[in-house]
Amino acid sequence: MTLSMYQSSVPVFVRLLKNLSAILDKGRAHAEAHKIAADVLPASRLIADMFPLSRQVQIACDHAKGAVARLAGVDVPKHEDDEQTIEELQARIAKTISFVETFTAAQIDGSEERDIVYPTSSRGDLKFKGVDYLLGFALPNFYFHVVTAYDILRANGVDIGKRDFLAG
Amino acid sequence: MTLSMYQSSVPVFVRLLKNLSAILDKGRAHAEAHKIAADVLPASRLIADMFPLSRQVQIACDHAKGAVARLAGVDVPKHEDDEQTIEELQARIAKTISFVETFTAAQIDGSEERDIVYPTSSRGDLKFKGVDYLLGFALPNFYFHVVTAYDILRANGVDIGKRDFLAG
Repeated sequence: MTLSMYQSSVPVFVRLLKNLSAILDKGRAHAEAHKIAADVLPASRLIADMFPLSRQVQIACDHAKGAVARLAGVDVPKHEDDEQTIEELQARIAKTISFVETFTAAQIDGSEERDIVYPTSSRGDLKFKGVDYLLGFALPNFYFHVVTAYDILRANGVDIGKRDFLAG
Repeated sequence: MTLSMYQSSVPVFVRLLKNLSAILDKGRAHAEAHKIAADVLPASRLIADMFPLSRQVQIACDHAKGAVARLAGVDVPKHEDDEQTIEELQARIAKTISFVETFTAAQIDGSEERDIVYPTSSRGDLKFKGVDYLLGFALPNFYFHVVTAYDILRANGVDIGKRDFLAG
């Protein structure tokens, strides 16, 4: 058995997204126990000029779905960024997991040298080889936003620990 | 070219550790500009019952050096956890990078099926195959602590952005 592009993407994204959803479950339970309105935690930030929890979750989802679609050479589906409650964020995650799970090893493996174009509004098109896109861009971005989502909930006193992040 | 265990470990750890050191540089500049004592940011936390910045950096370093050593089948060097200033944390990172960079592709590649033992104080020995250890344990742990170190500095108003984390 040798390491593959599929193994380094689909199961990694799916596991972490499931864990993020479970972490959000604990956030929702915390909000209910403390009578915090449903839209408060999703709007919480570590500092005023940083994205709130909702945006962290949306961007994490976008890097997961974008990575598998681009590596497989299919169109990236557009998901609207309109979630305002934890339940809505969990639906976004569930939709992303369903999409990521449709990809087979045959679609992703061998994409190391595939030319990837990642469009940005501020810096034009970023261009990568598949392996550099996955290891040097999609995965670090994904982890950045999943962990920051965790940290926002953790900083708000939600009863979560690293085991929730690593589970599975 | 196919994805390898080396490519998924050594250059990933080295790049992120270099970026973490550069992020800490900005933290040190921020502390100096605001006349914050050198031991304050390393002791900062997102919430009282979470590890401070210094411990986040130490654990991130430990997962990087532990991963490459275990995958290559060599002893993991012990680094004392006694850093109290950003300069000392940067020396810890530099020592870790030097160690990680000594490993060659020939030492790490082919470790997918290697039996890995990860000793813990609370849960005894955790056992993995090399690929599961790297993708499912060492890398997620590493990212968890690097991003949380970033988030602690960001929450303290240090002028850093995601580009500092992704650089290189």
